Amino acid sequence: MQKIVECVPNFSEGRNLAKIKKIADSAKKIKGVKVLDTEWDKSHNRSLVTIVGDPASVLKASFEMIKTATKLIDMRSHKGEHPRIGATDVVPFIPVSGITTKECIELSNKLAKMVSTKLKIPVYMYEASAKRKDRINLADVRKGEYEGLKVEIETNKDRKPDYGPSKMHKTAGAVVIGARKYLVAYNVNLDTKNIDIAKKIASRIREKDGGLPGVKALGFDVNGYGQVSMNLVDFEKTNIEKAYSEIEKLSKKYKVGIRDSEIYGMIPMDALVLAVKNMLKAKDFKSNQVLEKRLYE
Amino acid sequence: MQKIVECVPNFSEGRNLAKIKKIADSAKKIKGVKVLDTEWDKSHNRSLVTIVGDPASVLKASFEMIKTATKLIDMRSHKGEHPRIGATDVVPFIPVSGITTKECIELSNKLAKMVSTKLKIPVYMYEASAKRKDRINLADVRKGEYEGLKVEIETNKDRKPDYGPSKMHKTAGAVVIGARKYLVAYNVNLDTKNIDIAKKIASRIREKDGGLPGVKALGFDVNGYGQVSMNLVDFEKTNIEKAYSEIEKLSKKYKVGIRDSEIYGMIPMDALVLAVKNMLKAKDFKSNQVLEKRLYE
Repeated sequence: MQKIVECVPNFSEGRNLAKIKKIADSAKKIKGVKVLDTEWDKSHNRSLVTIVGDPASVLKASFEMIKTATKLIDMRSHKGEHPRIGATDVVPFIPVSGITTKECIELSNKLAKMVSTKLKIPVYMYEASAKRKDRINLADVRKGEYEGLKVEIETNKDRKPDYGPSKMHKTAGAVVIGARKYLVAYNVNLDTKNIDIAKKIASRIREKDGGLPGVKALGFDVNGYGQVSMNLVDFEKTNIEKAYSEIEKLSKKYKVGIRDSEIYGMIPMDALVLAVKNMLKAKDFKSNQVLEKRLYE
Repeated sequence: MQKIVECVPNFSEGRNLAKIKKIADSAKKIKGVKVLDTEWDKSHNRSLVTIVGDPASVLKASFEMIKTATKLIDMRSHKGEHPRIGATDVVPFIPVSGITTKECIELSNKLAKMVSTKLKIPVYMYEASAKRKDRINLADVRKGEYEGLKVEIETNKDRKPDYGPSKMHKTAGAVVIGARKYLVAYNVNLDTKNIDIAKKIASRIREKDGGLPGVKALGFDVNGYGQVSMNLVDFEKTNIEKAYSEIEKLSKKYKVGIRDSEIYGMIPMDALVLAVKNMLKAKDFKSNQVLEKRLYE
């Protein structure tokens, strides 16, 4: 089975479209990689490029993009609302299919070595690749942002990078690299105008408050109706069908129905396979039974 | 979105593996086509090759296979248990994704023209491609088999082929070509040793007896437990989740549970997307939200 990994590097450039295009183009020219999306935000002064492909090609493409961003972006004059510590700010590797998180961790370490030795940029490892507990959360790694870290990296041993020099790159600053799971954005729309019920259900299912593992949830008012809006950060633990059935169960307690639900953005085929497998008790169902999967082996 | 079509030509050769390999190899050499499977049966003296790919490539590959089979198989000396009228007996085109049945009908007519003009083989169109009501069913088209049709094709105007000469090809006989829907094989295992319940549920859900559209079903004893074994011949009308929930509902009446279910063989991604869409009321969910689909656009 083909290994497919996704990588979504974030760059500190959201205004100069020519520069953003040059960064994305350095990935496009790598065989085996597909650029799925390029997004930018002017007020954040930040962009992100979504690429997918086989691990070796994605590694190469992500390095090429970082190299280009290092040439084009100067952090000394960068201003924007979004927290950041470098020209290439954060580079997550995400397993899509046929590949484990462990392999994505190895990939992230390979990239960190390349970036630190060839480009002389200090690298911090985060999420599943974190080498210290206080670096799992991105917010902790980015504390003080570019301006603050510039001083601390040289003076505070707790801020010493995992790879590369204990000194910010003159123009590119530092970069955060790591592996994380695929995030599925999933919303369930309740058949009630009582937004409080959506908020209560959200608080019951989110992991933080003792709910389902890997679920982040908030209750919202969407066009006058209650919506439970979720990020499923580990669909192998809690997938769309589990989230749906749990919300269905809770909403019955409030004597409220479900209007519909929405999968927002992209979802890996493995998440669909798992959903069908669980709902239909089809315990032996495997993703290589999906015809399209065989087509590209 | 990429158009993917499947084609499963059946050949009247199930004993000489060198010949079967030569037939499959004539598809393998066509770019854009993947040979998923080659099967053969000695007592049937029959083989089938499953190929998938873009429509133009699959058309080319199916023609190449028929050309090879025409050279290698002589119907005058063919013996086997399975009904057949030609060296290439039947060629179904099946929509997999991004392609309509209508487009598959066009494809089947293109192949019919090529086969009848270039190879001088008479062609009958069946299933969705049938040009007469009495040719929708394959069994009707194959009535009398090779030996009987050899006489009737020249004497009975109701047996006149849709394309090509009203005379059997000297060695290759005739061929049936057409478009049909993808068939999903799906079984639900009941938690009862009373096989009669499985048989009763099967009779309630099969289309023939007034059940669900596009469902063929039988009740079986599998390892001592009742199984409802189905062919879903039109998953857009009745898909796996509908079959499962209907059987679940009926089995409750018999106070019986469901042990598990099994998707047998391959299933198109669109059938999974549809299942998830229906189960989660995710009315806007589209197959191009599946990451793997985007990867190969």
